[in-house]
This record gives sequence, structure tokens and C-alpha cells, in this order.
Amino acid sequence: MLDSLFRPKSVAVIGASNRKLTIGYRIIQNLFDMEFNGPIYPVHPKEPFIKNLPAYPSILNIPGEVELAHIVVKNTMVPQILRDCAKKGVKAAIVNTAGFKEIGGDGIKLEEEIVAVAKETGIRVFGPNCQGVMNTDPAVKAYCNFTFTRLIPGHISLFAQSGGVGEVVNNRLYELKAGIRMYASNGNACDVSVSEILKYWGDDPETRVIICHVESLSDPAAFLKAAKEVSMKKPILGMKTGRTLAGAKAVSSHTGGLMKQDATTELVFREAGVVSFRDEEELCQAALAFAKQPVPKGKRVGIITNTGGPGIISADELIEAGCLLPDLSESTKNALKGKLFPEASVNNPVDVLATAGPEHYKAAVEHLLADENIDSVLVNFITPFFVDCEGVAREISALAKNAKKPIIAIVMTEKHGWASTLETFRNAGIPTYDFPETGSRALAAMSKYAELTARPADSPAEFTGVKSKTVEKIIRAAFESGRGTVPQKGAFEILAAYGLGGPKTEESSDRASVLAAAKKIGYPVVLKVESEKVLHKSDSGGVAVNLRDEKTLANAFDAIHKKFKEVSPKFLVAEFVEGGVELAMGVKREEGLGPVMMFGLGGIYVEILRDVSFGLSPLSRGRALEMIKGIKGYPLLAGIRGRKPVDLNRLADMLARLSKLACDNPQIAEIDLNPVFAFEEGREPVAVDVRIILSK
Amino acid sequence: MLDSLFRPKSVAVIGASNRKLTIGYRIIQNLFDMEFNGPIYPVHPKEPFIKNLPAYPSILNIPGEVELAHIVVKNTMVPQILRDCAKKGVKAAIVNTAGFKEIGGDGIKLEEEIVAVAKETGIRVFGPNCQGVMNTDPAVKAYCNFTFTRLIPGHISLFAQSGGVGEVVNNRLYELKAGIRMYASNGNACDVSVSEILKYWGDDPETRVIICHVESLSDPAAFLKAAKEVSMKKPILGMKTGRTLAGAKAVSSHTGGLMKQDATTELVFREAGVVSFRDEEELCQAALAFAKQPVPKGKRVGIITNTGGPGIISADELIEAGCLLPDLSESTKNALKGKLFPEASVNNPVDVLATAGPEHYKAAVEHLLADENIDSVLVNFITPFFVDCEGVAREISALAKNAKKPIIAIVMTEKHGWASTLETFRNAGIPTYDFPETGSRALAAMSKYAELTARPADSPAEFTGVKSKTVEKIIRAAFESGRGTVPQKGAFEILAAYGLGGPKTEESSDRASVLAAAKKIGYPVVLKVESEKVLHKSDSGGVAVNLRDEKTLANAFDAIHKKFKEVSPKFLVAEFVEGGVELAMGVKREEGLGPVMMFGLGGIYVEILRDVSFGLSPLSRGRALEMIKGIKGYPLLAGIRGRKPVDLNRLADMLARLSKLACDNPQIAEIDLNPVFAFEEGREPVAVDVRIILSK
Repeated sequence: MLDSLFRPKSVAVIGASNRKLTIGYRIIQNLFDMEFNGPIYPVHPKEPFIKNLPAYPSILNIPGEVELAHIVVKNTMVPQILRDCAKKGVKAAIVNTAGFKEIGGDGIKLEEEIVAVAKETGIRVFGPNCQGVMNTDPAVKAYCNFTFTRLIPGHISLFAQSGGVGEVVNNRLYELKAGIRMYASNGNACDVSVSEILKYWGDDPETRVIICHVESLSDPAAFLKAAKEVSMKKPILGMKTGRTLAGAKAVSSHTGGLMKQDATTELVFREAGVVSFRDEEELCQAALAFAKQPVPKGKRVGIITNTGGPGIISADELIEAGCLLPDLSESTKNALKGKLFPEASVNNPVDVLATAGPEHYKAAVEHLLADENIDSVLVNFITPFFVDCEGVAREISALAKNAKKPIIAIVMTEKHGWASTLETFRNAGIPTYDFPETGSRALAAMSKYAELTARPADSPAEFTGVKSKTVEKIIRAAFESGRGTVPQKGAFEILAAYGLGGPKTEESSDRASVLAAAKKIGYPVVLKVESEKVLHKSDSGGVAVNLRDEKTLANAFDAIHKKFKEVSPKFLVAEFVEGGVELAMGVKREEGLGPVMMFGLGGIYVEILRDVSFGLSPLSRGRALEMIKGIKGYPLLAGIRGRKPVDLNRLADMLARLSKLACDNPQIAEIDLNPVFAFEEGREPVAVDVRIILSK
Repeated sequence: MLDSLFRPKSVAVIGASNRKLTIGYRIIQNLFDMEFNGPIYPVHPKEPFIKNLPAYPSILNIPGEVELAHIVVKNTMVPQILRDCAKKGVKAAIVNTAGFKEIGGDGIKLEEEIVAVAKETGIRVFGPNCQGVMNTDPAVKAYCNFTFTRLIPGHISLFAQSGGVGEVVNNRLYELKAGIRMYASNGNACDVSVSEILKYWGDDPETRVIICHVESLSDPAAFLKAAKEVSMKKPILGMKTGRTLAGAKAVSSHTGGLMKQDATTELVFREAGVVSFRDEEELCQAALAFAKQPVPKGKRVGIITNTGGPGIISADELIEAGCLLPDLSESTKNALKGKLFPEASVNNPVDVLATAGPEHYKAAVEHLLADENIDSVLVNFITPFFVDCEGVAREISALAKNAKKPIIAIVMTEKHGWASTLETFRNAGIPTYDFPETGSRALAAMSKYAELTARPADSPAEFTGVKSKTVEKIIRAAFESGRGTVPQKGAFEILAAYGLGGPKTEESSDRASVLAAAKKIGYPVVLKVESEKVLHKSDSGGVAVNLRDEKTLANAFDAIHKKFKEVSPKFLVAEFVEGGVELAMGVKREEGLGPVMMFGLGGIYVEILRDVSFGLSPLSRGRALEMIKGIKGYPLLAGIRGRKPVDLNRLADMLARLSKLACDNPQIAEIDLNPVFAFEEGREPVAVDVRIILSK
């Protein structure tokens, strides 16, 4: 429980100051301005008073109980101060001070010391190198933060890993008159984590929507678990920054984290039901909609417009964001024909015409709300001077009162002249947007949330007949021989042990045994060099395929042997698999997240076009099927232009088994199956090449 | 010249009214409010006065000269009124009245009549079904429009095909305090066209940047010509709406135009050097930057930030928009090390730290402006309460005065508290942005313009040895035999006549001649059914490839013959071409634009992944090379993983020749070459299958 952090009964500021341009002054000022509901105790070595309040030389001298402490002292003093806090019985501390992990070297050690104190004493540490928290609850009114953003109480809670981003978003929400419930920016996050905060807000009845900005997830698995749980109760709007290599580089230089392009956060967001954003403005505009309107049941939008051009933009935006603009039901169309102008269009978008007044808008909104083909209503309204705009706003507002479907209004107007019209919408809880783009995207985000949370529950696939002992043995043997990868033959045996199809294979070491192996397997065959020293077998001429007879095989052997003899290779003879659709699949263990699955079309589709999808382990067959359907090239698998579809269920099963194999064997760092051939209904897909890399 | 429209010395309003909620009143009100520099003549059948002004029963009764007339009467009266206007010597008329092409039927005829009057009398018609024009030039001050948007004089001229979009954009520019020069929304555009308006603004010295919204281009070739000319002088920011099928449907229902997804407008924009936008807000924010700051020479951006998170967002946005964040020069780094805080980062982004004051920002901006690795400077500035923010703004503003490179400022702040800081930036002509996203995208748009206008001039390729007579003969023969397509053999001959490589082919009609043809060509061969009645030859089993001997060919012939004998087909025997990279290219004649070229990787790359690029005819070899490099799969052609690159010059030559073929032969509606095989340096690419569709 984070009550001591977000609902403190008293706050001490250690490092308080009477100098106005300091953090130690500003926090006290902010607590004053917000009218914090409890005692504030400044701590200062010498000053008897800080800003009218009696000050104390140490936290230990404070007469009353202290629940939360701000620590704004020099970085090296923080561990001792924390110990004093614990001694005093302080429950939580916000360490605003910087100079820890993010500066490297001694800073890292200092931060480890803080974590140790927290563990030892049970005091919860928020930060260090952080802004702090806020809570607008009238019973609390805590502005435990040194920034300047003003707040309107409301229902959006906002977490921002970057304080700067938190400021920008918070400030914009203020401009939009979107109310805030709680705020947190935890900097280095050495103890209190984003996952805990999400869970806390998940249980807060006044938080209707959560914004969550992250630069990198230090514990993706914990985040996934928490966010998944919370997103079923209320929407989480996520934004991950540092997407490009340049961005990631900037992240690492300001957080001291590892520089890498993080492909998994988006995956975690999706799996957790978090609606993902790439733009702060869009994020704020969507939060406004979520805070004010009910969530739609689905993604079928009805558009009403009195202006053609912006109606077109709405249609473009909604369609591009994955929404649908279904035909209206016949009864709606008929009803509207009788109530709108004769020239009006009763299709979707409904064009009520520029001259439409209150009664026309009323009819359109009313019938679209009642139409069973429609999940949400988007109203485009440009305010013509010859129309009773106030009346239009009043009619729509009246309908919104009892509406079970969301209504979003795009009100295109000159804001001073039509201030009261805007006010009417706002008072009715209908968010208004300046642009068809912004309003449409906000509604699309709501539809996306509906879609994400409607995904069927996911339970890992179960398998029988898995031979885990075989796998352990092969891996142990590879380790014992000092290898970092599993030899081809063993790798195929590992696949087979988990029911993953591969070709018949034999390992040989000379010409005669290669020829014998081929005879055993049956022609045509593939011949591959087998040596850890040969990295790209195909590219370097170490593979010969479709060898149809002994003579061809012998020639191929001689050529490969000549090329690689100095590394004393072995040779793999394998059945040559023909036909089928070429695919690639793989799994890679990501720190803190376990095996991440990859699926795509083979060859250059994977290498160049990056037409791939990702999934988390343990992978269910349902999620595996989603992955398969998630690539752009999917129509090729579903059968196009007279081709038969491939056996999708067997393919999904193969992906799920691959995931299980990786989950069961943590020594496996990475598996690449490329190519895999998939066939028509009834035939198992076959991995033709496999690479298994072991953990160091 | 459109001076009579945009710089009228006098305006008549035919259909003026004393009823406040009418267009005929509003236009007069707007002209009053704007303080129009000339006489206003209301025309009304009965009223002696309109809004204090003497009114006249007909345009013919007006004593003085009338240069521009607004027509706001019933649609059926418009042609006669226009004639009267011409008689009076009126030079241009804005027809606000609706009820023309957009309503179909009689409306179309009425519009044709208007066009006839315009042609006959020389009067220029703007509209019908339109808003009108505005000009803020102090010598004119014409608000010839019935809308409510307020204007600040400035340097942005705005064309909007949709009046609604025009309003939204104009209104937003007003909110951003971005000044407008001229405005035009020409509705059905029966006479005065967007191209003419672009050219007019191109010559207007006070217009620094042009915004151009279109839903569909009625004369794309004229637009291309005009925009290309103007964009070399000043930036044109384009936005095409109705991108999705749903959006296009909405366009057609409100303009009466053809419903189709328009893929060519983006192509025209690019070719014309128009910077393309998909979002009104982004468009406005970019216009602000273009109006205030110099255009950068290139896309190398230097970022300065005092806050990590927003700096990361800037980096992400710029990189994703195609900008570069190069390393700073060593001399810049060294200079900054001496002038910034020791903990500051002197990489790009330069992190001056939250505590940075005026002198630090001054140093950073000054050295980045001077750095030869940098074309533009993006300043991220969150306003900490403990910093002299006003001083920061003053220092940057002083540097901006003589800067040859653009400076964009993202000022993240609470706008009331820091109003004077924002004002300081604004007065110095530095546009300020609320979000790292918006500012970065505005700068990216400027960089894009620099890139587009730096493209080398494009001159159509010249070819020798083209046998145009051969082509004409084959096409004539196809037409004469009543076909809509050219038979395979003839199609390959057409290609050969323009120097486009194909396989050796022979046309045969029976088994014996097929076998003889194969002997002549040499095995292996391909056998194809040849009949206009067989549409998808491959899919329906009408093609057999890689036939390596007579027996196999005979069997293939028997199978194909059996399958298609009822359509009495002929047969094409062709050389079987092996190896090479599979490609597709094509050309399709688009109305008003001529042959549009397509290039992509073959097979499912084209069909499913749509990894294709487009180009206009006549295509130069340079543009052809751009097309080739424009697909995602390009690395495959450039040579990856040890493969040799294909002969790109020969490939570009082939595309250019294909364009020439289509340009020379307007009877050709469409050519598909799929697949085309491209080979290593020195070997001609070969079109293995060809389909030539003739115009009806």
C-alpha cells in the first residue's frame, strides 16, 4: 500500500530553505498553495523558521509524527538521513536529490546503499533523482513536488518516468481543463516501482484513467502483471519514448541505463491491454475522452457532420486507426430521412448540412445512439453564424446525460465568440476537440481499449509427450564440449523432443559416411558443414541443397570439404524438404521478460522487410494464431489466387511448442528456425534449419 | 492575373440582405469589419439601403465601376446575373450560391452554363458553391467571404478546397498568432483553379509560405506544373484528404466527384516539391515555422535541451521524420565543455541540464549555429522556476537576429506565468511550440522542403533506335482484330521495339508447331495458353514452366490443350529464363496525368505487401533510379549477404524506356511486366511475362 506516499497525514522537508529559488523552498510553497491537509515540518540545521513554519535541526527533533519525508540534501548525506527517518518512524521518503545511478561510479554505490536501508528498515523510498507525487483528493491535497504545474482535481492519474514529460503532459491537461487525480514521477525508481503505483491507482475509485509514460521498463514482467490486472478495471494509456536509436542513446545518457532499442515495451503494452501512444498531445486528448465518457463496446463509429471536408478527415483518421464506419440500420436511415433536410446524407458519415439546427442534430445523435450497428458517436460541428449553435450544444448535451455510448464532439469555432457553446458541451461532460484529427483519434483510442480488453483470456498451451530429459542431455553435452551453440543434429533432436517437425538428419565426418547417411535418409538430400567456427554456413558456401544422387552429393562434399577442411568440420546430411511456404520463427530470451517469440515469412521478408510479429511466453495457441495473422504477408498463408491455405493450427501449435521449449530450458538463450516450411491442411510444418544458442 | 479577385477596387454584393443571419448580410458585415479599401455596392431588388449603404436593384444600376461581384442569389438565376455582371464590366465574380455540380442533374447543366458565360464574356468565375477569398494587404483589406474566422496580417497564404478545412486551419493559425496574407476556397472550382491561385501567390512578394488543401485534383498535370514552379520560389505545404476508401466516399458525396481512392496526389505533391501533411495541426505549426524562420540547407539538426525526456522525444521524432542528428564537430564540443556545466552532455542532443541559465543557452545556440555539421537548431526549454528564463529567451533571441539557420524553440511552460518569456521569443520571430513533437515535426517539415527542392533537375530520358512504327502496327492489328489486349508475342515485340528485354518467343497453334518452336528456341522452355478469354493464365493452369525436353513439353501441351480447347486458344512457346531477382514493373494511364509508373519486387511483394514505388512520365533515368531505391526491399537489389548487386542502371533504363513507350502510344492504357528478372552488372533485365491493355 502506498497510502503513506500518496495520502500522507504529515510531511517533513529535510533540506528546507528560505531561499526562494531552491527546491527546499519550492516544495513547502507548493504544499502551502495546494492547502495540504496536515502539518508541514521543515528541517534545517540552523534556521529556526522556514516560511513562517518552525523548523527543526533534525527529523529526530520533530515533536509530532511524520508520515512522509522529502529529502533534498546533498547526495552523500541521503543514506544517513534515511536511517534517521526510519528511526523517527517515517513511512515513506521522496528523495528529490540527484547524483545517484544516473551519474555512474560512486552514484551507483550510493543508490545501492539507499536500497539497502529501505530493505533493512522497511521505509519506502520514492526516487532518488525524482520530482515527487501529487494528490488532488480534497481529503489530502498533497503537492509533494517542486514543479510549477497547476492542477484541477479530476479523474486522470499520471505516471511519468521522465519528470519533463510529466510536466508537459500535466500542463497540457491543465490547459484542456482535464482534471488530475494523482501524479507520480519516480526518477531512478530504486524502490517504489511503476508497477506498484499502477496497482495502487487501479484500486483508487476516483482514478478513471491512468497515463503511463516510460522510457525503459526495469522489470517488464512485473509491469505486465500489474498493468494486465489494472487494465481490465480501467484504461491505461501508455507512451514509450526512446524508440529510435538516437532516442535510446539520449535515454541512456540521462538515466544511466543501457543503450538499446527497446522492441519489447510495445509488446508488453499490447499484452497488458495498455493503449499505446506516440504523441503527448494525442495522449492528453484521449485521456480527456476516457475521463469524461463511457468506453464503447466496440469499434463501430457513427459520424455526424455539418461540414464535408472535416467529415472526410474524421473518416480517414478513424479508418486508418482501425475503426469501422458501418452502414446505419434501415430504421435509422428512414427515421433520419424524415427529420433531416431533404438534401442531407443519411449514410455514415451523416451529413446534416451546414444549415442544420438543434432539431437536426438532436435527431441524428438520438438515432445513432439507438442504432445497434453503432458503438460510439462522433459529432463534427462547425459553428455557422446563421445557426442556433447554443441550441445544438444543448440538445446534444441533453442526450449525453443518459447515453451508454460515448459521444465525442469536434467543435470547430472561434473560441471567444462561441465560448458559451463550448461551455455547454463541457458542462455536460462531452469533451470538445478543435480538430477532426484529434477528436477522431481520441475516439479511436477508446475503441482500441475496447478491443484490447475484449481479447479472450490467454492460458498457456499444454502439451503431452514432451521429452524434456532428452533436451537436458543434449544441452549438457554441448556445454561440456565447451560450445555456445548446439550442433545441428542435436538441435533437430531437441526440436523433435518437443514435437517440432524437422527433416531426417545424420551427422557424418567423412565422405564415405556422408554417402552412407544419404542412402539411409533417401535422396534428394542437403549437405551442410557443421562447425561452430562457421557462422554463416549458407553465405560462405557451406551448404548444398537438392542433391539428387550420389554423384552430385559426392561432388558437393568434395567442394565443401576443400573449403572448410582447416576447421576440421563435421557434416550434416539432411532430408531435402521441398514445396511449402517459407517461414521463419524464433525465440530470444529478453532480460526480465523471458522468451520473446518471433514469427514471419522467411528469407528477405524477415531480413529486409522486417514483416514479423512478436509474442510473449508462455505462448498460448490463440496468441500464436494472432501472431501468425499479425504479419502483413498473412494472406499468403491464408491462401490467395487459388492457392490452398497452409495448416494454420499446426503452425500455431509449432510456435506454442517452441515457446514451451524455451520456457522449460532457461539455458537456451535463442532459437532460430529459418526457414520453416508450412504445408496444406494435415501436414506438419518442418523446420529446415535451426540454430540454438546457449546462455553464457 | 487574379488581381481583380484578390485586389478588387470595388465590390458588389448581389443578393445583399438586411437580415442578419444571411450570407448576403454577412459578406457586407465582413467587408466593413475588415475596413475594405473601396466602395461596397449592395444589390437588392427592393431595399433602398442595406446596412447604411445605398442599394441598387440591379448591378446595371450601380453608378461607379465594379471590379468584383459576390453572387448570392438562387442557383437558377446565376447565369443571367453573371451576364449582367459582364455587361457592367465586372472583372471577376465569386459565386457563393450552392446547387450546381455537387447536386448532380440540373445542377451540372447550370454549372456548364456558368462556364460558358465565363468563356464567352471573359469574366472570371470563382466557385460556385464556395466561401470566397480574403486579402489582408493593408492596401486592399478584402474579406470577401461569409465566414467568421479572424485574421492577423502576415505571410501565410492558404488555399482550401474544403471551406470547412479552410476555416479550421485559418482559425488555428489565428490562435497561434500566425499571420495570414491571402485566403481562397473555391468550392466547385468551375473556372478559377487552384493552379492559377498557386501561381498568383508564387508571384506575391509578401506570401512566404503557401498552404494547399485538396480533396481531389481535377487537373493534376496543371497542378504539377504550377506547384513545381512555385515550390522552387517558396514552400507549398500540401494536405490531401479523402485518403481512405471511406474518406473518398465522403468526398464524392459532398463534391459530386468520382469516388475513388486517389493514389496519385501524393506522387504529384512529391514530384512538385510540395511538402505533404496528414494533420491540420502539424500543417499549421509547420506554416508558422516557415513564415518566421529561414529554410535550412539540409536535414542535419542540432538539439539543445534542459530536460531529458522531452529531448528524447525530439530525437525520436526527428529521426522518424528522416532528419539526422550528426555528431557535433570537435571544436564545438571543446568550446561547449568550457562553457556548460561539467555534468552537461556535449553530444547531440546537447543536455545543458535543468539548472542551465542564459549564458549556457547562449553558448549552446551560438556554437551549434556556427557548427558546419549542423543545418538547424532545435531548442528544448522547460522553464524551471530557479532559472532566469527571461534571460534565456533574450540570449537566444539576440542570436536569432542574424542567424542564417533556422532556430525552433519548444518552450514547455505554464503560459500565464511565463507569458513574457514566450513574448520575447515571439517578438524575435522564433516560433515557440508546446510539445517536443510539434516543434520537431515543424523543423522536420522544413528539412523535408530543403530536401525536395535540392533534388537534381529532371529531364526525360532520350533514346535512340526506338522502332515506333513496329509498335503502331501491332497495336493497330490488335484493335482491328477486336481485342482489348495485345497478344503475348506482339506484346514482347512491342517491348523489343523499345529496347526492353524479353525471352525468345514463338506463337503456335498446335502440338507439332509447339514442338518445332521449342526446338528453334532451345530447351528449357515455357508454354503458355494464348487467348483473351483466359484472364489469369497462371492461376488457371494455363502456364507450364521449365520444360526441359520434348517429352515434358508434349505432356504439358496436352494438359493445357485439354483444359482450354473450348476457347480455341493459340500457344506461346518462350525461352525459360532462370535466376536473377524477381521484380515487377508497370505503367497505368491516369486521367489528366498520363502514364504513371510502378516498380516493385515481384510475386507477393507486389500483390500482398504492396512494397512498390511510383513515378510520373516521362520518366528520367534519375527518377527511375529513385523509384528503384524507394522500395523497402531495395537492399536485395543493392546486394546483401554476399550476393552481387543487380545492374541498377540497366534496370533504371528499362523503367525509363517503358515510360517512353507509354508516352509515345496513347492507345496503351496499361502495361504490366511481372515478373521481370534482374541480373548482375552487365546483363539486361528480362520481362518474362507482359500484359498490354489498350484504351477503349
